Amino acid sequence: MKKLEQIYEGKAKKVYKTNDPNLYIVDYKDDATAFNGEKKGTIHSKGIINNLVTNHLMKMLEGKGIKTHLVKEISDRETIVKKVDIILIEVIVRNIAAGSLSKRLGIPEGTKLKTTVLEYCYKDDALGDPMINDYHIAALGLATPEELKIISDYAFKINDILTEYLADLKIELIDFKLEFGRTPNGEIILADEISPDTCRFWDSGTGEKLDKDRFRRDMGGVEDAYKEILSRLIGRKL
Amino acid sequence: MKKLEQIYEGKAKKVYKTNDPNLYIVDYKDDATAFNGEKKGTIHSKGIINNLVTNHLMKMLEGKGIKTHLVKEISDRETIVKKVDIILIEVIVRNIAAGSLSKRLGIPEGTKLKTTVLEYCYKDDALGDPMINDYHIAALGLATPEELKIISDYAFKINDILTEYLADLKIELIDFKLEFGRTPNGEIILADEISPDTCRFWDSGTGEKLDKDRFRRDMGGVEDAYKEILSRLIGRKL
Repeated sequence: MKKLEQIYEGKAKKVYKTNDPNLYIVDYKDDATAFNGEKKGTIHSKGIINNLVTNHLMKMLEGKGIKTHLVKEISDRETIVKKVDIILIEVIVRNIAAGSLSKRLGIPEGTKLKTTVLEYCYKDDALGDPMINDYHIAALGLATPEELKIISDYAFKINDILTEYLADLKIELIDFKLEFGRTPNGEIILADEISPDTCRFWDSGTGEKLDKDRFRRDMGGVEDAYKEILSRLIGRKL
Repeated sequence: MKKLEQIYEGKAKKVYKTNDPNLYIVDYKDDATAFNGEKKGTIHSKGIINNLVTNHLMKMLEGKGIKTHLVKEISDRETIVKKVDIILIEVIVRNIAAGSLSKRLGIPEGTKLKTTVLEYCYKDDALGDPMINDYHIAALGLATPEELKIISDYAFKINDILTEYLADLKIELIDFKLEFGRTPNGEIILADEISPDTCRFWDSGTGEKLDKDRFRRDMGGVEDAYKEILSRLIGRKL
């Protein structure tokens, strides 16, 4: 497998072509951004942690029937993934009120939601990733109703699997963001990452935040929080 | 019917108790506000026009099977309505992109939407009426799924009826906001108003705006636009 030219650089990852037209290589960076790119920084070893954590969780999800883009981890920061067209919808699943939900709806952070909340945002940096609903998605042509049904079913199933898996590691899954892709033959699969960048993880006992909120809110202990997640999930110390 | 003490004053209407515990009197004001109350003004005769237009449209909708709070118009500004608990959801129906939708999603104003868009906002001035979806509504306990089904079915049906009715008067229905109420026996009925305050009306021929956007955007001709709507709908000149 040859790593060819870079085709994309996002806030946290670079993506490269390979000599196989159906495969990409993802390369995780230590760069951290928040508030739609307004806040910038570096979280040492974040790229390694997010790569390893994402692959570990995607492998676990594959075992429970979730199709993902994961093919093979090839280094601490690099993973071969299936080539997909990313669907321009950020899928957010919330179990406990936090972050933007708390602010927008006036529900104090930490409140257990009466029902699991699914949200969609239009993945468009220039517009600030605005919240959208099923009708906006149809009007914008982002996904068909059939695709959206697959995506929402996957999102709830992933939430159930992850919540249970993490609870055993004394991690409470507050909320998380998923992205999905369309393979060349039109199949919808889970893409992007599942990491402390894209999830809110709270220690089940102490409520301590073990995720990117430590960076967003200048709470300190950012690297230690990411390392703790790696350690609990994979048993590897960095 | 006796008008008793005022129980509520909103941005555009006052509501009074009556000697019948199941009936209220609504009294329409000329006060105009926009941008969540940041902009304030007066639109001369608006109260009369909105009262007469609302009653005219609600009567028409009743004839087509939509249950409303309308009981009886008792003066140019006053109407007897059924007592309801207002459901704290603003229901927005959009046929053509305009206003906040255009801004949020980057769709130029005037673009025909590929599909009718239904939006919900949480009716809470302090929070700025944030957009919500079915899951937020469940989590906030604003309406049951059964109630929300009735509301969305009503909203689409009202859109079909109004669009056709207004087209005959050379008015294009761009978008509009509805509010629903719960009667003491739990029935969901249409409440609030349907007027140039709550709808975007464009002249079908010229595209001229005949609604509150003239006030929001300081376009001038505000009163004339409201009077034009009254004239086309009811044939009454003010």
